[in-house]
Amino acid sequence: MTSIDEYVRSQRQRYEEELFDFLRIPSVSTETRYRDDVRRCAEWVADRTREAGVSSVEVVDTPGHPIVYGEHHVADDAPTVLVYGHYDVQPVDPEDLWDSPPFEPTVRGDRVYARGATDNKGQVFMHLKALEACRETGGRLPVNVKLLIEGEEEIGSVNVEKFLVEQKDRLACDAVILSDTGMFEKGLPTITVGLRGMVYFEVRFRGPFSDLHSGVYGGAVENPANALATVIGRLKDDDHRVTIPGFYEAVRAITDQEGANLASLPFDEGSYVEEVGAPALAGEEGFGTLERVWFRPTLDVNGLLSGFTGEGAKTVLPSKAMAKISMRLVPDQDPVAIRASFESYIRELAPEGVSVEIDLFNAGRAWAADPEGPLFTAAEEALEAGFGRSPVFIREGGSIPIVALFSETLGAPVAPIGFALPGCNLHAPNEWLDLDVFHDGIDALARLYALIGERGLSG
Amino acid sequence: MTSIDEYVRSQRQRYEEELFDFLRIPSVSTETRYRDDVRRCAEWVADRTREAGVSSVEVVDTPGHPIVYGEHHVADDAPTVLVYGHYDVQPVDPEDLWDSPPFEPTVRGDRVYARGATDNKGQVFMHLKALEACRETGGRLPVNVKLLIEGEEEIGSVNVEKFLVEQKDRLACDAVILSDTGMFEKGLPTITVGLRGMVYFEVRFRGPFSDLHSGVYGGAVENPANALATVIGRLKDDDHRVTIPGFYEAVRAITDQEGANLASLPFDEGSYVEEVGAPALAGEEGFGTLERVWFRPTLDVNGLLSGFTGEGAKTVLPSKAMAKISMRLVPDQDPVAIRASFESYIRELAPEGVSVEIDLFNAGRAWAADPEGPLFTAAEEALEAGFGRSPVFIREGGSIPIVALFSETLGAPVAPIGFALPGCNLHAPNEWLDLDVFHDGIDALARLYALIGERGLSG
Repeated sequence: MTSIDEYVRSQRQRYEEELFDFLRIPSVSTETRYRDDVRRCAEWVADRTREAGVSSVEVVDTPGHPIVYGEHHVADDAPTVLVYGHYDVQPVDPEDLWDSPPFEPTVRGDRVYARGATDNKGQVFMHLKALEACRETGGRLPVNVKLLIEGEEEIGSVNVEKFLVEQKDRLACDAVILSDTGMFEKGLPTITVGLRGMVYFEVRFRGPFSDLHSGVYGGAVENPANALATVIGRLKDDDHRVTIPGFYEAVRAITDQEGANLASLPFDEGSYVEEVGAPALAGEEGFGTLERVWFRPTLDVNGLLSGFTGEGAKTVLPSKAMAKISMRLVPDQDPVAIRASFESYIRELAPEGVSVEIDLFNAGRAWAADPEGPLFTAAEEALEAGFGRSPVFIREGGSIPIVALFSETLGAPVAPIGFALPGCNLHAPNEWLDLDVFHDGIDALARLYALIGERGLSG
Repeated sequence: MTSIDEYVRSQRQRYEEELFDFLRIPSVSTETRYRDDVRRCAEWVADRTREAGVSSVEVVDTPGHPIVYGEHHVADDAPTVLVYGHYDVQPVDPEDLWDSPPFEPTVRGDRVYARGATDNKGQVFMHLKALEACRETGGRLPVNVKLLIEGEEEIGSVNVEKFLVEQKDRLACDAVILSDTGMFEKGLPTITVGLRGMVYFEVRFRGPFSDLHSGVYGGAVENPANALATVIGRLKDDDHRVTIPGFYEAVRAITDQEGANLASLPFDEGSYVEEVGAPALAGEEGFGTLERVWFRPTLDVNGLLSGFTGEGAKTVLPSKAMAKISMRLVPDQDPVAIRASFESYIRELAPEGVSVEIDLFNAGRAWAADPEGPLFTAAEEALEAGFGRSPVFIREGGSIPIVALFSETLGAPVAPIGFALPGCNLHAPNEWLDLDVFHDGIDALARLYALIGERGLSG
């Protein structure tokens, strides 16, 4: 009988070809013009899920983009694992900064470059291939599987969250596994035990009903661009602390154990600065870089638009100004309370010469967990076997709101095992996936499913 | 012999048809894609200038867009009048806010709507038709004429200023007349005796070398959009006073006479608020609306751009942020000193996590003058005859840097006689020109040239 390791090694070329087909589908969930591509991508995922040995697969319609849901039952006494992932991707703009077309996967060195290569197509595809490898080498799937692969993760997961809550009995399981997080460094397997939450807003200030001549009117009419900039400037103090009333109320200080774990990680601030390419790092006074991104909440402007932005000079006093503003939250911060506080603070800070409109795009709680029990023991062992190194346990600054919801709704342990490497340009031009990590990850995940099948998840 | 009045009345239809041809040429000077249209527009103006009776007309090449220069000598003892104007126009964006295409002149009611209708094609064309009317009714042009019509007013007049300084002997004259200013209200002829100056900058903050995931990096990397907004917010205090060091040093308080003149004008704050359509007026504490726009300097953001500005949510930490920022200056403020102070202030305020780039697009002094002597006497008389009301003397908030330069370089009195009506959407969508004002203005200007020819300009 072929071992998982041998089988996975023999399929490298096919795995890559299939992955590249997946990456060619422009499943950008936030732009309506890609609506049909998103659906086509769901059908593609459903077909590959069937091929992986999952007998019952459906493409579930929602008011937004479809969910791919698959189930396969092997035995009543086998453990049940729910696998989550998403097939939608971020927009590609600014497209001119891509060195190769975002939807034409291009291999350079060990990497494949494409939108979604890492986030999340590459990683969700590793699970499909890991399950398939188990079936090909073991004759059947090793566990009862429930696969939940959505198409709206990049726009807030609203419909999958509804599906999860409504179908929680159908989704009952002994563990949730997902790969939508990072690997601390190449080849160092990583289990994530904390994620930040998020609230994301669009704020619009409107002044005069149309753009005005800045000479004729400048000085007598409130300028919405100046006003919005001023309000944004007041959202943080000189120490980079967010000034929204009550913002830090529920934020806990780091524990000694968390501090010791942070200090033990192979983190090099020099490489980090180099990776981001900024003149200097900066953040909330009194905290180190990893603590800032993992344990502290923050506020970022994600976009700004007002007035004339073309070449040269145009002397307008803009009629309106827009900012996209998001906050990353940490455990115990309540997105509902933060939203209310943010909105009333913005309205309080805005001058009377503008009217204010605020839209909420998405909101989700942070999540943190202790990595205890048979799921994490099996994950440590499988990752060590697949990558030749013991995994580390980290937190992450990003947000996967559904993780907290899985934990609350299904009451099962959740293991985010991620393969995104530092600098892989998630949400940025030239996103890439490391192909060594891709193949080793399939191997490790297949071993994990096999181990869970052998040992079960009770006790 | 036909009177000017009768002749002008008889030509209404032809004047409008010719004006509309002028307005159809998209002579946007700031966008390189219109380069050929700008040249075509210069040739069109040169042809119409010849038709107006100006014998020597040339299209003068410059490193930028061409200058149309015409001369006509009638007699050594006749007064010489230099007429200035510009044939270039502002960009049209946002184009979707135009009710009719910006380069397809469309008559609705008393108005023609098109980019450049008022600023400055309509007004410069009134002078060409006024001269032509003098020749048609008087047999020859009444004065020695020098016509200087440039194609770079909307981008800083750099080349015409160089031309003016280099050719100042050739341009020697007894008076400068231009129409690129406003009429206080419809039918109330207006002579402008003060204009604000301007400095216009583009400021760019650069942080990370590419857009980053705002979850992964947010809180540890300086966000250029937050940083730029914060710096902009600090450029004015809560009383709308500009905080740039030394900004108000040279600014003079209003005189009693200026205050009395201000108070005498038919200004209605209620109509003004309605015209701009803002929730409320706002400006520097302690000053009224007209004083704010005519006698006080100010700072406006003309454009803002950073990160993701499309539909929906994208969680980027932007790599860069851009603002177009201009200041309107009043007499005695030195644009060179203000520029130096602004640039060093921005660099001082910027955090170390971003690099700063600043470009200057244009700079010009403010101008103010006493309306004394035969030029202004003739102007008052001609305007009263053309419009049936005595003209008022006002200042304006806009900037025509070349006016100060004419005054300094040629040593001749300058009379800005403007026909732009309040709310005519200069520099904004749906720019319009009032056609009654257009025809009455041609009549008044023709009378003015005739009067100057009869009486001369000495004494």
